[in-house]
Amino acid sequence: MVVSATGERELLGAVAYGELSAFDRLAEDARLAPDLADRVRMTAIAVTEFEHHARISERLAGLGVDPVEAMEPFRRPFDEFHRLTRPKTWYEGLLKAYLGAGLAGDLYREVADLIGDDTRELVYSVVNDPGFDDFVVDRVVAAIKADPDQAGRLALWGRRLVGEAMSQAQRVIGEQPALTGLLADPDAGRDLADVGRLFTRLIENHARRMKRLGLSA
Amino acid sequence: MVVSATGERELLGAVAYGELSAFDRLAEDARLAPDLADRVRMTAIAVTEFEHHARISERLAGLGVDPVEAMEPFRRPFDEFHRLTRPKTWYEGLLKAYLGAGLAGDLYREVADLIGDDTRELVYSVVNDPGFDDFVVDRVVAAIKADPDQAGRLALWGRRLVGEAMSQAQRVIGEQPALTGLLADPDAGRDLADVGRLFTRLIENHARRMKRLGLSA
Repeated sequence: MVVSATGERELLGAVAYGELSAFDRLAEDARLAPDLADRVRMTAIAVTEFEHHARISERLAGLGVDPVEAMEPFRRPFDEFHRLTRPKTWYEGLLKAYLGAGLAGDLYREVADLIGDDTRELVYSVVNDPGFDDFVVDRVVAAIKADPDQAGRLALWGRRLVGEAMSQAQRVIGEQPALTGLLADPDAGRDLADVGRLFTRLIENHARRMKRLGLSA
Repeated sequence: MVVSATGERELLGAVAYGELSAFDRLAEDARLAPDLADRVRMTAIAVTEFEHHARISERLAGLGVDPVEAMEPFRRPFDEFHRLTRPKTWYEGLLKAYLGAGLAGDLYREVADLIGDDTRELVYSVVNDPGFDDFVVDRVVAAIKADPDQAGRLALWGRRLVGEAMSQAQRVIGEQPALTGLLADPDAGRDLADVGRLFTRLIENHARRMKRLGLSA
């Protein structure tokens, strides 16, 4: 068993399950697509998430950690988040995919920045997907242009998504001593106020994504 | 636009949509898995189906055919098959994946045998997955051993699956003049009796797969 840095196993477990559940939801939400071409496009994005999951699992196995065990503590919060934010329309699904991936990616990167080089690079490599962002922005902006009433509904949906995501993220960090210890490590000069600032940054980035879609955060 | 052999476009369109819908159902049925390890396993199989879909779509594009257009005529029969055979349990899902992939693979190969080398090789390369078969056989045989009552229920389920599959396959071939023309091409000395013999072979192979699971066909 390779000794891993504090919080590394938890970060990788969270990302592995996060990507697996993202796969699951995107594969399902792809069926809301208005045509076969967009369904294939969304499905391809889901498949990319699964490939990310597989790479993270491989890394866990390389550290001597059973990926299933590492993912286990994160099932409940991710499943709960998805259960509470089930899209009813194609556009709700697109918005969720874009905002959810953005928020999760920001959080994973923030944690990865406090961990060793190899894991940091791996995590960064699985959370960047600008091609997907452009696809969503294109579709959502066009939908709002065609039907301005969509803007209000989608803005509300975006606020609900960020609320549920924040409450699950706080719960995960609170329940995982290794993550709390890493994010508020006194030896590294960090405390709970830093965790608060982290959440503020997440919300600021979320607001920027909403603005890019022409929606009020 | 590259000129393609009679029935080539239809075969590739059917396989492309067949693999896309197989992805869809496997990704959904993976959620019936009793544990996270089997869910990941089933999801990986779904992802492989999507990769097959992508390779076939690429080939269609290479022939100058829009993959979405080529898939369109096959949506209804595949969707109908899946709608009528929605698994209620993990084992029904496993059985469906195994028997469905077997039947579809046999049919695709039979048609591909009548077409040019490149497409034949491509189709053969996307329908062979012995690793998956072993996984299903292992799980289903163990489940029947643990609960012999399962055998009767699953045998019934297998009969229903093959019945629905055969009726959709006959419909597809009947509705597609290029496929009918290829399978019953008088210039090649083939007639409708050959189509009948093809279906007999499909049912014989299905019975062999049922037997491998210890189920009566």
